[in-house]
Amino acid sequence: MEAKANGPKQEERRRTGIAGPTNPLVTPLLSDLYQFTMAYAYWKAGKHNERAVFDLYFRKNPFGGEYTVFAGLEECIRLIANFKFTAEEIAFIKTSLPKTCKDGFYNYLRGVDCSDVEVYAVSEGSVVFPKVPLLRVEGPIAIVQLLETSLLNLINYASLVATNAARHRFVAGKSKLLLEFGLRRAQGPDGGIGASKYSYLGGFDATSNVEAGRLFGIPLRGTHSHAFVSSFTSPDEIMDKSLQSRDGSSTCEDFVSLVQTWLSKIKWSHLLHGIFGETNQTELAAFTSYALAFPNNFLALVDTYDVMRSGIPNFCAVALALDDLGYKAAGIRLDSGDLAYLSCETRKFFRSIEKEFGVQDFGKMNITASNDLNEETVDALNKQGHEVDAFGIGTYLVTCYAQAALGCVFKLVEINNQPRIKLSEDFSKVSIPCKKRCYRLYGKEGYPLVDIMTGGNEPPPKVAERILCRHPFNESKRAYVVPQHVEELMKCFWPGSADKAREELPPLKEIRDCCIKQLEQMRPDHMRRLNPTPYKVSVSAKLYDFIHFLWLNEAPVGELE
Amino acid sequence: MEAKANGPKQEERRRTGIAGPTNPLVTPLLSDLYQFTMAYAYWKAGKHNERAVFDLYFRKNPFGGEYTVFAGLEECIRLIANFKFTAEEIAFIKTSLPKTCKDGFYNYLRGVDCSDVEVYAVSEGSVVFPKVPLLRVEGPIAIVQLLETSLLNLINYASLVATNAARHRFVAGKSKLLLEFGLRRAQGPDGGIGASKYSYLGGFDATSNVEAGRLFGIPLRGTHSHAFVSSFTSPDEIMDKSLQSRDGSSTCEDFVSLVQTWLSKIKWSHLLHGIFGETNQTELAAFTSYALAFPNNFLALVDTYDVMRSGIPNFCAVALALDDLGYKAAGIRLDSGDLAYLSCETRKFFRSIEKEFGVQDFGKMNITASNDLNEETVDALNKQGHEVDAFGIGTYLVTCYAQAALGCVFKLVEINNQPRIKLSEDFSKVSIPCKKRCYRLYGKEGYPLVDIMTGGNEPPPKVAERILCRHPFNESKRAYVVPQHVEELMKCFWPGSADKAREELPPLKEIRDCCIKQLEQMRPDHMRRLNPTPYKVSVSAKLYDFIHFLWLNEAPVGELE
Repeated sequence: MEAKANGPKQEERRRTGIAGPTNPLVTPLLSDLYQFTMAYAYWKAGKHNERAVFDLYFRKNPFGGEYTVFAGLEECIRLIANFKFTAEEIAFIKTSLPKTCKDGFYNYLRGVDCSDVEVYAVSEGSVVFPKVPLLRVEGPIAIVQLLETSLLNLINYASLVATNAARHRFVAGKSKLLLEFGLRRAQGPDGGIGASKYSYLGGFDATSNVEAGRLFGIPLRGTHSHAFVSSFTSPDEIMDKSLQSRDGSSTCEDFVSLVQTWLSKIKWSHLLHGIFGETNQTELAAFTSYALAFPNNFLALVDTYDVMRSGIPNFCAVALALDDLGYKAAGIRLDSGDLAYLSCETRKFFRSIEKEFGVQDFGKMNITASNDLNEETVDALNKQGHEVDAFGIGTYLVTCYAQAALGCVFKLVEINNQPRIKLSEDFSKVSIPCKKRCYRLYGKEGYPLVDIMTGGNEPPPKVAERILCRHPFNESKRAYVVPQHVEELMKCFWPGSADKAREELPPLKEIRDCCIKQLEQMRPDHMRRLNPTPYKVSVSAKLYDFIHFLWLNEAPVGELE
Repeated sequence: MEAKANGPKQEERRRTGIAGPTNPLVTPLLSDLYQFTMAYAYWKAGKHNERAVFDLYFRKNPFGGEYTVFAGLEECIRLIANFKFTAEEIAFIKTSLPKTCKDGFYNYLRGVDCSDVEVYAVSEGSVVFPKVPLLRVEGPIAIVQLLETSLLNLINYASLVATNAARHRFVAGKSKLLLEFGLRRAQGPDGGIGASKYSYLGGFDATSNVEAGRLFGIPLRGTHSHAFVSSFTSPDEIMDKSLQSRDGSSTCEDFVSLVQTWLSKIKWSHLLHGIFGETNQTELAAFTSYALAFPNNFLALVDTYDVMRSGIPNFCAVALALDDLGYKAAGIRLDSGDLAYLSCETRKFFRSIEKEFGVQDFGKMNITASNDLNEETVDALNKQGHEVDAFGIGTYLVTCYAQAALGCVFKLVEINNQPRIKLSEDFSKVSIPCKKRCYRLYGKEGYPLVDIMTGGNEPPPKVAERILCRHPFNESKRAYVVPQHVEELMKCFWPGSADKAREELPPLKEIRDCCIKQLEQMRPDHMRRLNPTPYKVSVSAKLYDFIHFLWLNEAPVGELE
């Protein structure tokens, strides 16, 4: 049960110039046992080096939507680039397989790496659609099979949470700040780290997760909790009461008294008179103390006792005292209650303060809301009207409660240059055979119109040339398209041999920018929350014919008696 | 963006004889930024060493049930035992906090560890209930606050998935084999590893996840996928056709022909005549090849083409050929279609084979079912009647689709020996103040009757002595109990100083056994799926009075005008 010391092992694996996976637990053993039993059976049958092509794709967009954000590619390439079994790992595999397995297999495993594997993939952060491969992995069948589970694991959740984040951004609007607060409720430590990374990729602005900030350079946000407030008893316990003014020109020796003075001014002000009685002194002590620690970044959680009768007046007293010394308070956070109502009341209070005391921009003070928010609640808040500037979103974002999983699959589409098809009585589960090329065709208005898959050797679609796009399984659904722009979707991210060109892995910020840009480029009716229009995914006429030829060939013919 | 080399760091941290967390990403930085801003504010106010007591608990049982399995404790203790900031980590925190923060704070962080922290906890694998603390963490407030996020992260998902597993076991029944197959759909790499670990803890028998098998000694299971089947073309491609008999006494030179012979015997048998026509030869080749690789462990996935017309006859032909050589086939797996119908038809077929060819126990052949199973579908299969011996459960188990999160919270209940309460307009969100002791009281029939929390200095409930148990918030709900057995729930798992006694961390298998035993000990009406009876959680009369005294003291008095 020892924690694994991964330092040296990671080093040993790193022969490709590409770092290992972020999580050291991602090793060639992060896989299903059946990949190893199959690898053995391939090896035993002398088939292990047969050249196979697998497509990784999903069948249905998540969250009832019509788009998906592709994420997780960098971690896949990191795994592939460093894919090598250690002696300890091979010894463990040996104990996990039947004793009858031949030793030659373990010798074979010792030499396994991905130098003979090729990976073509859609760029990370792309908007993607069902059936079109996200990854095409080609190589010796046993090795590609050994990659299956880890690739699915690294892409499924990454893409799901990135899509979830994009959907939250869509409903919140461009101008709001979106903060990911999910670490404590995430599905394990790197459920949390992955959520932070891929929420940022999908359009969030910042995270509370410090480790994710360190690993990926994501901006960090956070203030204080209810426990901080209730750890105080009264302002009397504040020992060091002095605060230097922002410009250093003077020092207020008793900031606590200054706050109390402001509190009574607010209480007896004409505009606010009678709105509140005595505020909670525990809370006032906590706010004052927090402001003394962070005079430039004073952001207070105002709902420990009563937002309008205690939290907001206390916050304003401290903020106005800070203002006297040249500091600008950062704002407040609401973590319970009716966020629409409370944010509007708070905004009114802030505006009254601005008016009554002539403090410029006090009415524009930042209001952050948190507390079990999700796509629906943000949408409901929008409909009702609110004054929230920033949303802190946790549980429902990171656990993707609205969708169990993306459900990517990894299907054999060709072996030894022979196309393979996986049939099913359910059309949506039939795989599209062949080593394919995939294109996105753009229309006159700059929107993507359709994705098209063709056989590997077909000529690519050409700009301004009419091409027939067919639904892969429905013979009546087809359309001619004259693309204004043609984009090939899959690029080579792992060419196997080191001397071949490969796409660079861009930094996270660049992937995020690309994602946001692509999302904005989509035709709005594909993106709306209710009844979005499906984006069309098609095959070329030639590939269509071939699929159906193969299908008839493979499907059993029934017998009526 | 370098992967973290954790080897040396883990070593440096390991001064307590307790290994670091399983996932090297679990460090003191796996936390929300606000823990650090609060720590700074405590330090700035000179409050950081004030002695605080926090309770970690949840408010509602998950999955609409009335019980929860507690899991994740060992990982928490591993974190606490090795909690120490590295210079690199402190440097990162410095870049994340405002520049105005004093350097003294970073010097303070350098010395932080958990030698002055005490952790009392319920044993891992226990059946637990809302409001009763799972962990009580006592120590300097700044340090305990820094632990909050990681502890919640390590417990929330662990307990949720362990509870989910226990619920699946309950509905499947004791006699079925439960296999966790969720790695590819889990929320990230250690979402998968955690799911495997805690599903096993909650009563599953095995996992497909090789890394989890290696880390925790969980039994591994797995056979082959559809890709394996479709990678073959025909039996002609099998080169090495020989198979030695199980006892080594003879060798069958052409196992492929032996299989073909059996296939035609089955086809023309009296009992099975007309059930199927030509079976798929690709599939037959794959099965034959797999049997040649694993003659002692032949388990075949039978639904690539058509279960009853191809998969089952092909499987039986290979299994009967193996039987000729003294091998016993392991069984089949169904991964699509109507599992109730197909398992019953398969069982009939197997029984006919047993009868027709006199192969003992062939009718009892293992049938494994997979394909998007969950608690509800297993329940529905039971109601309809099925012949499944083993369930492979993935997505819905590991992602806990039926419940977003357990929702554990971490609340300050005492500081400097002063009890603290967190109020809320929602009763269920009011915290129970004081450093408490918690007991489970058992009745005459051996069932647990009620959990009771008392103040830290109250005498413990005594066997055969009447005690009043009160609902913490509802004055009319109370009951006298005469316990036949009293169990103190929280034990010291981290005493801080090395010379004090602490509970051992038992091996996973022992935790699992304890969990299964406790679940069996519960009164059945608490455990049923529909409308279970809530298990009672109470406070002593003295604690009840104190809670309500404090409540009145803290709650603001409204003003009517």
